[in-house]
Amino acid sequence: MAGVISPSMVVYVVENVTHGNRAFSTLNEGYGKVLRYGAYSEEVLAKLRWMNEVMGPVLADALALSEEGIDIRALLAESLHMGDEGHNRNKAGSLLFTTKLAPLVVRVAPDAETAASVLKLLGDNALSVLNPVMAACKAMADAGHGVAGSTIMTTMARNGTELGIRVSGLGDRWFTGPAGTPDGLYFPGFTAADANRDIGAFAMAAAPAIVTFISGAPQDAMHATLEMYEITVAEHTAFTIPALGFRGTPTGVDIRKVVELGVTPRINTGIAHKEAGVGQVGAGLTRPPMSVFEDALVAFAEQYLEAS
Amino acid sequence: MAGVISPSMVVYVVENVTHGNRAFSTLNEGYGKVLRYGAYSEEVLAKLRWMNEVMGPVLADALALSEEGIDIRALLAESLHMGDEGHNRNKAGSLLFTTKLAPLVVRVAPDAETAASVLKLLGDNALSVLNPVMAACKAMADAGHGVAGSTIMTTMARNGTELGIRVSGLGDRWFTGPAGTPDGLYFPGFTAADANRDIGAFAMAAAPAIVTFISGAPQDAMHATLEMYEITVAEHTAFTIPALGFRGTPTGVDIRKVVELGVTPRINTGIAHKEAGVGQVGAGLTRPPMSVFEDALVAFAEQYLEAS
Repeated sequence: MAGVISPSMVVYVVENVTHGNRAFSTLNEGYGKVLRYGAYSEEVLAKLRWMNEVMGPVLADALALSEEGIDIRALLAESLHMGDEGHNRNKAGSLLFTTKLAPLVVRVAPDAETAASVLKLLGDNALSVLNPVMAACKAMADAGHGVAGSTIMTTMARNGTELGIRVSGLGDRWFTGPAGTPDGLYFPGFTAADANRDIGAFAMAAAPAIVTFISGAPQDAMHATLEMYEITVAEHTAFTIPALGFRGTPTGVDIRKVVELGVTPRINTGIAHKEAGVGQVGAGLTRPPMSVFEDALVAFAEQYLEAS
Repeated sequence: MAGVISPSMVVYVVENVTHGNRAFSTLNEGYGKVLRYGAYSEEVLAKLRWMNEVMGPVLADALALSEEGIDIRALLAESLHMGDEGHNRNKAGSLLFTTKLAPLVVRVAPDAETAASVLKLLGDNALSVLNPVMAACKAMADAGHGVAGSTIMTTMARNGTELGIRVSGLGDRWFTGPAGTPDGLYFPGFTAADANRDIGAFAMAAAPAIVTFISGAPQDAMHATLEMYEITVAEHTAFTIPALGFRGTPTGVDIRKVVELGVTPRINTGIAHKEAGVGQVGAGLTRPPMSVFEDALVAFAEQYLEAS
């Protein structure tokens, strides 16, 4: 991670140092009543203002002091050996992030109380590192985009209504369809009737304890990862899973395999309330619609078969 | 954890709040050239002096500020869901420890540079929490000592030459025998010929990545835990293992089961160099000699059968 820039909203800046491309992410607010799940009460806004005006500049100075920034790929690799899967479970990664930042934050903060508040918010929030990790994954995936003839999916994005994918060899075209509703565990007081459509795992075998959050048994997390080897083209060299004998995570979804085998990628995700203002009400599993992969494969055939 | 006291050497004070008994531990120095593995160069001593004179008082004030101290049992339970087993692998627990202490350390440290140095040493040392965890385990085990008629082992201790056990119903008698030499992985430049006899796991299934440190395959860690259910009387209610469907760790070694089944407790431990001054040179697995359990069982029979 290269630093933090602040025009009007502070963001993390994550750089793919091999390919030179960058990705950006907001600072994570935590669980429950948070803006990214649609909550916008005065309490939510006050916290965001503090994060933008106090925490952001401290983190920017801390990362500047570190000179090299924080190696998010190494951090993510380590957290997969500590029960994280990097999306719905980031407890270890967030602790690693907080611990690496702590001496830097202490040195640059304007006073001890500010340093303590920043470290408490980072340390108490088990999702602190989620946003830079997502930006790092985007920075890695983007580097694989734009390879002529490639059927590897390089983007899968959701907005609570639709899901869209992009394919490496198909330029900037999006293939979209309806987002699913996650099958999961709800926070106390909420049920599936409260759920909005999915807004957003291939390393689940590394995180058996995640089932306490998203539902199911530890073996289900193992099966989720094993199934993904069927539709991917590689095993990651940096991200390994101890419980699978340090096998690399399934990497690079090939849309041809998805359509041929009828197996769509697994998504493990948070669940937002269908009414704006409430926020996150649970977490669970879902799948993208098969139609987006079929549409992309037809487009691929049209583009490359007609050209030849 | 209740606090830190400093007569001439700073120690952690861990209290069993249910039973009122206390246990104590030194501050952890890290890996390699450290006093507890026999190293005593000027560099080692300088670090110990800094820990005693600067870090210790800061931690004492930090824990005093927290009022309730840090709940080490809860921390250990959480770390078992994050790939630790609580002895040879304490990466997650040490990060939890550092992160919980960070805001307190910042508030009590005499200056930012001291706070930064303390947080860097705690955060960089993947064994930071090992010593208070061992004291917490002793505080828990001690509460089970002195139950008339009980054949549960309440202490197993080693000093690099001998191994000794105590049994709940046999008072303060020690049953001792020769310590084994661990079968393990050595740090670069060292071999089994450098190893001293063992100085020191029942939750290994929680920590598949530990095999990169102590040797073996992740499945071996699973088997090590499963075997221990054979010689224990209970499954822990607070310490659970995700990969075993959240089954509690094997708890309470019964010396009758050890002798009847011929299965001794597994020990996973660090390996010290046989020459004083060198320090830790590896880590691995060993077992106590069966004779100490046989001796204890004979003593038990003599004490209780003769009395009846």
